[in-house]
Amino acid sequence: MFDNKEKTNIEALGEFGLINHLTKNIELVQKSTIKGVGDDAAVLDFEGKRMLVSTDMLLEGIHFDLAYTPLKHLGYKAIQVNLSDIYAMNGTPTQVTVAIGMSSKFPIEAVEEIYEGIYIACEKYGVDLIGGDTSSSKQGLVLSVTSIGYADAEDVVYRNGAQEGDLICVSGDLGGAYVGLQLLEREKLIYLENPNIQPDLEGKDYIVERQLKPEARKDVIDLLKEIDVKPTAMIDISDGLASEIMHICKQSSKGCSIYEEKIPLDPMTFETAREFNLDPTVCALSGGEDYELLFTVKQADYEKIKFKMDISIIGHITEPASGCNLITKSGNVHPLKAQGWNAFPNSESADK
Amino acid sequence: MFDNKEKTNIEALGEFGLINHLTKNIELVQKSTIKGVGDDAAVLDFEGKRMLVSTDMLLEGIHFDLAYTPLKHLGYKAIQVNLSDIYAMNGTPTQVTVAIGMSSKFPIEAVEEIYEGIYIACEKYGVDLIGGDTSSSKQGLVLSVTSIGYADAEDVVYRNGAQEGDLICVSGDLGGAYVGLQLLEREKLIYLENPNIQPDLEGKDYIVERQLKPEARKDVIDLLKEIDVKPTAMIDISDGLASEIMHICKQSSKGCSIYEEKIPLDPMTFETAREFNLDPTVCALSGGEDYELLFTVKQADYEKIKFKMDISIIGHITEPASGCNLITKSGNVHPLKAQGWNAFPNSESADK
Repeated sequence: MFDNKEKTNIEALGEFGLINHLTKNIELVQKSTIKGVGDDAAVLDFEGKRMLVSTDMLLEGIHFDLAYTPLKHLGYKAIQVNLSDIYAMNGTPTQVTVAIGMSSKFPIEAVEEIYEGIYIACEKYGVDLIGGDTSSSKQGLVLSVTSIGYADAEDVVYRNGAQEGDLICVSGDLGGAYVGLQLLEREKLIYLENPNIQPDLEGKDYIVERQLKPEARKDVIDLLKEIDVKPTAMIDISDGLASEIMHICKQSSKGCSIYEEKIPLDPMTFETAREFNLDPTVCALSGGEDYELLFTVKQADYEKIKFKMDISIIGHITEPASGCNLITKSGNVHPLKAQGWNAFPNSESADK
Repeated sequence: MFDNKEKTNIEALGEFGLINHLTKNIELVQKSTIKGVGDDAAVLDFEGKRMLVSTDMLLEGIHFDLAYTPLKHLGYKAIQVNLSDIYAMNGTPTQVTVAIGMSSKFPIEAVEEIYEGIYIACEKYGVDLIGGDTSSSKQGLVLSVTSIGYADAEDVVYRNGAQEGDLICVSGDLGGAYVGLQLLEREKLIYLENPNIQPDLEGKDYIVERQLKPEARKDVIDLLKEIDVKPTAMIDISDGLASEIMHICKQSSKGCSIYEEKIPLDPMTFETAREFNLDPTVCALSGGEDYELLFTVKQADYEKIKFKMDISIIGHITEPASGCNLITKSGNVHPLKAQGWNAFPNSESADK
């Protein structure tokens, strides 16, 4: 019988601590495994092309709330967050597998809606759904997606290539998905108190969509190829800007300076954050789920990138000794903290 | 807000009906996708080698019960059931990704035990764990594994290649995993009624292990290569012999005759089934989770295969019009029914 002698709760480690703890002793044995755990996607060498593989699991009550998540959007988002990992390697996604667990009482129309969203996302990005698993769940809805893609060996961009002096760039704008979530949570509470009151999301389409229907930034990868800029390091923003740039700096053994005034914020994100008495910069740094691309480029590429509409240069890579810092609008220097979205929400993570 | 207007429950479809329903309109667009949904693993063409991908999800309360499943065994089994799918394509597994969802109250030692089982399985089969996802779950333990492997294009064995007259072969013995499960369920009930009574699994190691610690049949794939036999069709037995041979027959547009007296049963499976007033043949046909390989070979290969210890010839492929039949020991002919292990346990599946 299962002996439930508890010792250390996962809470004490946090997600990254746990992953690190569980994977630190892996020894890779296959010649075709170029990169395993530790980046956005695994890299496999299949005869010239690098194959890219990434897996993400979405759990009801942790990653989504069916009270305000349309099922079609959920399916769409499950694919997008996985494709985003392949783009973050500078690759081209080509296939996905989807494993889904749900109550056997779930109406078929609901499952269809999820798959409709999955198929729309696949079609839009030219990706094949190539397999998966469908099972009953006694415990709510679970979606696990594995995405597969490829890149020429010389095109793959890892997290560990940032060099001192490199410019730190980010696509789109940040914080919107998090502020959108606050809005949805508020309307849910109002609805639960009085179901006759319709949700008031009037004029908030943009940030609600940032939360419910993110888009993987294929266009940014295409743009970078077009202007012949290969990032030195890249990651997608799922846990917030602070957490992600710290991943790049840690794996590149470097520090960084991020300028608060350069962090791209949509006006609606800014205003709505204020309505919630939230600091818009903190929403961008720690909110997560924006699925924008964060990447570093050589200074020599500055001219190529400086006027690109959808790319902001927000700082630069420094020597490791100076650490990872935010330069505030008032000129103060604050060490960045990776208090991003946490897959173990109750946890006291070590870096908090 | 999510409008929960129910129409059709998943129950009415059953797992295969649901998968078929959800995937029937897929249009593959990638040149590299040779085979998507509909076999044990997807097949991708990456420059000469066929890459194989398969995903399976294990959910607490559906696929396993922590009351009697040691966590190390659970991790081991999660890998084995996925490798089994790659072998069932006549491939060589090379990588796996593991996504895991668990309560944040779960003790770290418990997670370590799961991963210990995962790593033991990976090491034993020379497979790299190359990525995954770890998240909190509000709803019990969830494991989703994606396995990746390869085969030369001409070596891949699908489900649809069986020809009239081909011999139907199965490795190992059947029904043990199901009977082992009955034993564990009984001991659990006894334990719940009186926790002072220790489980009585004395002398039942083999069938308990068949349930808790299955082995993917790499050795059978190696043997077939060694004796230069390429199956015409192959599948692994996860849902029971009846369900699996019907998959082969349906996809090959053929019928079959299976001889009850030829179905391999371990004496312990036979005896224990009798103790539970179960028909041992039904356990083999419908029990599932044996993870043996079921395959068809040309009659010309009979001499090569007839004396192989661990392979039983249990029947032959017939014309489609005669259907899928079991010839009983007394010579009666019964149409096979795919009432295998069902991922939607409450469902009335169409073929029952």
